[in-house]
Amino acid sequence: MKTKNQAYITAFGQNLKKLLDAKGKTPEEVAAHSNIETKQVYRVINGEHAATLSVVYALAKGLDIQPKELFDFVFAG
Amino acid sequence: MKTKNQAYITAFGQNLKKLLDAKGKTPEEVAAHSNIETKQVYRVINGEHAATLSVVYALAKGLDIQPKELFDFVFAG
Repeated sequence: MKTKNQAYITAFGQNLKKLLDAKGKTPEEVAAHSNIETKQVYRVINGEHAATLSVVYALAKGLDIQPKELFDFVFAG
Repeated sequence: MKTKNQAYITAFGQNLKKLLDAKGKTPEEVAAHSNIETKQVYRVINGEHAATLSVVYALAKGLDIQPKELFDFVFAG
């Protein structure tokens, strides 16, 4: 992978925050309902960590949504 | 991240292969249209590599689809 796409990683995190807010869930609650650590949820939200497929699946489980819903945002990359 | 979700990584790769076939594209062509190496496309297809958000975005670009379409498959995890 030549270039990391920080803009997309940031956009994903911002969308994740919107989903948490819309569901009235905290990063702690999402972490509790999936096997990810709370600090990792925060790092994905803040665009500091590029989620892998396993984290994507766990986040969706923690939010009780389908993984594809985590990618349902406009990004003019 | 306590546990890697190999089953989901494998399912993602199998779905990716279906998308390539449906579009009549080879891993080489997808790699050429995105900034990923061909061997990385193969490794994602074979479930050997868990795509990160940047790879997800690049794969979607290489297939000329939206990233969420890469997650449009049933997974009874």
